[in-house]
Amino acid sequence: MNRRKLLKTAAVGTFLATAVACGKNSEDEKKIIAKNTGKIEWKMVTTWPKNFPGLGTGAQRIADSITNMSEGQLTVKLYAAGELVPAFESFDAVRQETAHMSHGASYYWINKNKSTPFFAAVPGGLTAQEHNAWIHYGGGQELWDELYAEFNVKGFLGGNSGVQMGGWFKNKIEALEDFKGLKMRMPGLGAEVINRMGATAVALPGGEIMPALESGAIDATEWVGPWNDLAFGFYKVANNYYGPGFHEPGTHTECIVNKSAYEKLPKYLQNIVEHACVSENNKMLSEFTYANNVAQKKLIDLGVNINNFPADVYKEMFKISNEVVAETANAGDINKRIYESWSKFKKEARERAPFAEQGYMARRG
Amino acid sequence: MNRRKLLKTAAVGTFLATAVACGKNSEDEKKIIAKNTGKIEWKMVTTWPKNFPGLGTGAQRIADSITNMSEGQLTVKLYAAGELVPAFESFDAVRQETAHMSHGASYYWINKNKSTPFFAAVPGGLTAQEHNAWIHYGGGQELWDELYAEFNVKGFLGGNSGVQMGGWFKNKIEALEDFKGLKMRMPGLGAEVINRMGATAVALPGGEIMPALESGAIDATEWVGPWNDLAFGFYKVANNYYGPGFHEPGTHTECIVNKSAYEKLPKYLQNIVEHACVSENNKMLSEFTYANNVAQKKLIDLGVNINNFPADVYKEMFKISNEVVAETANAGDINKRIYESWSKFKKEARERAPFAEQGYMARRG
Repeated sequence: MNRRKLLKTAAVGTFLATAVACGKNSEDEKKIIAKNTGKIEWKMVTTWPKNFPGLGTGAQRIADSITNMSEGQLTVKLYAAGELVPAFESFDAVRQETAHMSHGASYYWINKNKSTPFFAAVPGGLTAQEHNAWIHYGGGQELWDELYAEFNVKGFLGGNSGVQMGGWFKNKIEALEDFKGLKMRMPGLGAEVINRMGATAVALPGGEIMPALESGAIDATEWVGPWNDLAFGFYKVANNYYGPGFHEPGTHTECIVNKSAYEKLPKYLQNIVEHACVSENNKMLSEFTYANNVAQKKLIDLGVNINNFPADVYKEMFKISNEVVAETANAGDINKRIYESWSKFKKEARERAPFAEQGYMARRG
Repeated sequence: MNRRKLLKTAAVGTFLATAVACGKNSEDEKKIIAKNTGKIEWKMVTTWPKNFPGLGTGAQRIADSITNMSEGQLTVKLYAAGELVPAFESFDAVRQETAHMSHGASYYWINKNKSTPFFAAVPGGLTAQEHNAWIHYGGGQELWDELYAEFNVKGFLGGNSGVQMGGWFKNKIEALEDFKGLKMRMPGLGAEVINRMGATAVALPGGEIMPALESGAIDATEWVGPWNDLAFGFYKVANNYYGPGFHEPGTHTECIVNKSAYEKLPKYLQNIVEHACVSENNKMLSEFTYANNVAQKKLIDLGVNINNFPADVYKEMFKISNEVVAETANAGDINKRIYESWSKFKKEARERAPFAEQGYMARRG
């Protein structure tokens, strides 16, 4: 797959436009030529701008944790999107061992295989806690390993944003009809859902959203959640903030490694790489949860109208989401098995939810 | 504080009766005398029986992770409750460096300080995801460090059970009146809550619950959740299973280390200890979430009636929970600061919840 096509088609998630695409930087490449120390030096590329809150900072924490826990025996140098390879070449960079690892989100690689979004987030899917359970104990990791082995890559969960918001709208959404004719920035499988609701999904990188809202090219946009959205200032031009969204209920980032390079590591360094990822998987969700609480409060103080979508809108969103997600099973044998494993887990999680976190939060004082 | 008093008074949590109290085993002590390898050997005691599902197995994973990531440079040998010290002497064992670390739950140490339960779970408190956020980013860790520094101990989060169930009842609970005169096994702050509802809370270790239910000494019991409860067979004598419970909405286990011993470790080993805990914090909740889903299905197949408590019962439980938890603030300066930090976080989390995981789970298809 050529770069242009991948860039064009990888627009499959909310995190998309946080990724920056630009040329290689040979300066940086030179800096990490092995210094004859006998230590291993790994390059970690990412799909995020340097120190982008939550995502870029989380990737940096993984790199630092590996370096620190191994006392520099495995030193990981992080490259933000575009510093070594463009954001959406990071998967292939790891595949070809141009880089040894990458931090991003699996739904960016949907054109490599239609089911990659199941390891990040799909519309109407699992919460972060549920997704962790499916990956770690419900058979998810094994299916993910099988899927990525074809590319000589192995994936670990590497952080989660929690449930993302439904988006910013210039006009109120009071009924299902209000989606008809709406031009909305919405990436990935969520785009297919709102298109089937009568809207027109528009793919836009982050930097182009505000001008598009201001010019009237779009009427609405989704992004991430209060913490990341506040910084963009969407509330200044589209003051109706709806959520939660239907499309990314707990978006997992991934930390992928070149499988051959990983297998060549001594066992203790493999353990360090794995634990650095799992540990960040816990930390990043904590940071998003805390920072979103604080940012939502600020948005309300700024006069933003925060609401749930009307009940009939949610009903339709989730109905169509289930159809769109089920269609991925038709793409092949592995796709069918991923969908079936995930569906079984989701069904059991939903049966349990009224007696678990969902039931608790709905009632507590 | 002498051992008898601690044992008697530490009965403060659902996990309590999973802890086994018996004498020291000098055999085991001998086995870990340093073998002149130059490597560091640490003893990890726990409040759990060996390989107790979720809790004991999670503690073992932490010990193994530290050993494996450090390539044996810091080798951690795990002692189940009673193998080196009795369960409820594990905190003091770490304090006195009889052991270097321990895995348990902070609410066991309520008689050392009234606010220790805030680092495990309190009635009407935070979910696992929220509690992680408060500890890691909302100021919780700093208050915990301050509280435990007095005992020369440092705590890390070391796993979570998720929201626990409300309990097993011989008779249906159809109204608030049904709690009056009820004899129920309930530990900790939750006991105070049901006493104020007119019930009589009874403190019983796990092994004594079934006989007490069978003899009629108690009418009801809480335990953990479907996974751990199924194994005990409570459904055979008390077939009405209510949940979620009000009393442990996301019980965090802790991994504590002797502060002086920890500070003497080289920095990379400190990092390894911390990441092993944070990583298990993610894994254990995943295991409970997955296994509870599966076990609940089995319980339903076995004919168990699973229900929520009636609305007015929950309302009263949460009202009294808030009072009981607020009273901890009166115990002293640190107690007041812990309560205020936690309350501020809880308030913001509740404001956010309708637009986050709670709102999502209530609506998804």
